[in-house]
Amino acid sequence: MHRGGKLEVRSTIPVRDADDLSLAYTPGVARVCTAIADQPELVSEYTWVSNLVAVVSDGTAVLGLGDIGPAAAMPVMEGKALLFKEFGNVDAVPICLDCTDVDALVETVVRLAPSFGGVNLEDISAPRCFEVENRLRGLLDIPVFHDDQHGTAIVVLAALRNAARLTGRSLGDLRAVVAGAGASGVAVTRILLNAGIGDIAVSDSKGMIYQGREGLNPYKEALARDTNRGGHTGSTEEALAGADVFIGLSGSTLSEHAVAAMARDSIVFALSNPTPEVLPDVARRHARVVATGRSDFPNQINNVLAFPGVFRGALDVRATTITENMKVAAADALAAVVGDDLSEDYVIPSPFDQRVAPAVTAAVADQARLDGVART
Amino acid sequence: MHRGGKLEVRSTIPVRDADDLSLAYTPGVARVCTAIADQPELVSEYTWVSNLVAVVSDGTAVLGLGDIGPAAAMPVMEGKALLFKEFGNVDAVPICLDCTDVDALVETVVRLAPSFGGVNLEDISAPRCFEVENRLRGLLDIPVFHDDQHGTAIVVLAALRNAARLTGRSLGDLRAVVAGAGASGVAVTRILLNAGIGDIAVSDSKGMIYQGREGLNPYKEALARDTNRGGHTGSTEEALAGADVFIGLSGSTLSEHAVAAMARDSIVFALSNPTPEVLPDVARRHARVVATGRSDFPNQINNVLAFPGVFRGALDVRATTITENMKVAAADALAAVVGDDLSEDYVIPSPFDQRVAPAVTAAVADQARLDGVART
Repeated sequence: MHRGGKLEVRSTIPVRDADDLSLAYTPGVARVCTAIADQPELVSEYTWVSNLVAVVSDGTAVLGLGDIGPAAAMPVMEGKALLFKEFGNVDAVPICLDCTDVDALVETVVRLAPSFGGVNLEDISAPRCFEVENRLRGLLDIPVFHDDQHGTAIVVLAALRNAARLTGRSLGDLRAVVAGAGASGVAVTRILLNAGIGDIAVSDSKGMIYQGREGLNPYKEALARDTNRGGHTGSTEEALAGADVFIGLSGSTLSEHAVAAMARDSIVFALSNPTPEVLPDVARRHARVVATGRSDFPNQINNVLAFPGVFRGALDVRATTITENMKVAAADALAAVVGDDLSEDYVIPSPFDQRVAPAVTAAVADQARLDGVART
Repeated sequence: MHRGGKLEVRSTIPVRDADDLSLAYTPGVARVCTAIADQPELVSEYTWVSNLVAVVSDGTAVLGLGDIGPAAAMPVMEGKALLFKEFGNVDAVPICLDCTDVDALVETVVRLAPSFGGVNLEDISAPRCFEVENRLRGLLDIPVFHDDQHGTAIVVLAALRNAARLTGRSLGDLRAVVAGAGASGVAVTRILLNAGIGDIAVSDSKGMIYQGREGLNPYKEALARDTNRGGHTGSTEEALAGADVFIGLSGSTLSEHAVAAMARDSIVFALSNPTPEVLPDVARRHARVVATGRSDFPNQINNVLAFPGVFRGALDVRATTITENMKVAAADALAAVVGDDLSEDYVIPSPFDQRVAPAVTAAVADQARLDGVART
């Protein structure tokens, strides 16, 4: 399936004869160039840039494989690009960069920016990914979106809203523990805080993150300040006792015992791939709702539910950025697709549900207009 | 025709269900990534990189429009990419960069290199284009080809060989004058010197280039050293008296009087676009062979005759570079397509002649093997 790669570039216009050639290329194309030079906003009308996203990686955090470099990351980025096209009709080009320094990554993407209508950052290791994204968001007037962070966060929020609804609770009623303080752990925590989760605490490989813990990087310092109202200082499993929600994003394991010690109607999102922190049939003995990242179990938390529609919506209105509100709107739209069919085994739609991308697209575009970041 | 752009990215594999998704993307793709991490050369087998060319411009010398910037250059680069696909089945992505400094351009392309199998530089102003290309050729082990230089040079050499043959002469019998010392003027002069032209002299906007002329940049200094054995120091038209060949690449004009003063059986390539230095019906009163860059006159000197086959051939054998021999081989193959149909109005094939790209491809691939730069 991967032999020869998974993408091609195609022409959308015919070049059958000298007339076609002289219109598509010189001399005819000069009129289009001159028009754009005079009126720069016409670039979105007369080039493919307005529908084109760069899928940018430095290959430092590829799937669960770690730092395998830009060349070995390419098959993933091609896969991402094909999902952009298939699910969002967004053209996407994989850009695997041979540099890992934050300054170099930012500088390179800024130089590339005239060629693209949006930037999807992918598989860049934490904590560099936070700074790369933050700086690019400040420098560019096109959407910049680190999917490992926000794609995951959107889908988790959608699934958690539905899981809460199923059990007659709101997000504000829930106490959650997130295992993992990398890209997705930080972003999931942030979106849940924004959405009003009751309480949330985060752990990394050294245990729970709390104020005053030694050696925290600035991103974990900020997490310590904003989370863990319960003041948990021990292990993830200790913090989980009596909690309502577990969200695993770290490749760690979760014992059946720890699931059993959670509160009634507990919710377990064991999202590590390919091996969930706890297998669904084990977790379901005690938890009310279980989700994983895998397609062979119910409730698959898959970023493809979010990023095609997020970019489709942002590109459709020529959004200058993707706001926090737009991410929450995407999650709410995604959750709403489930509707009255909500059940323990159906808190999130299938990636192949045809309603998903249009719903996310419309919600993101509408919210961009409300937030004043739409150009059309 | 240009509305919405002229390109799209397409998937070459189906994604119909969860099984397809888990093979094309996670978790299946991890096996391919691991294989490439272990054996880097597999990137050419399992990604689209081996068939992918970056069409890189900084928008400083776009067509005859000059420095219109990267966004306004995009329609030309899209056109170039579609010609790559249509004529060479090469996938190409336009990369218009928001930087013009030589160091920045070189650095950026080096960082991008893992994502591409070749680099086609386009519409970068002289003399920066020479340094950008030379440095990239030294730094990268994939083909780097500035088409404004070498594409033009290859097609001019092909047409000139045939024009000489038509009049019973060889290149060594000819004295040529080139008007224009920009990217194409320098490259045409270099390839003709390599191919053994009898004598050649070059002019810029200040007149003929000769040793000792004040204020020459290093590239013109080198031209002065290697050309103009006749020691012409005046105007282009003065140098042209008694010459066999005129090659116009400067947007200047050429008087009928000057054409009349050339040698018998003279050859006039008036290649400025859209307005040739002299109109073909005027030049033909005195010259034996006349070529232009336009499709509405006979003998169109068009780069599309060269670059698709050059890259197709180079990519087919995974060439590490494009050698001078490969360019000459491309020209010879292109000239040979004309064969016995050679006439005053047919010294170069039509861009739509189906024999052209395969002939150039085969010649370039064969020569790459002979030159020891092929990897397969």
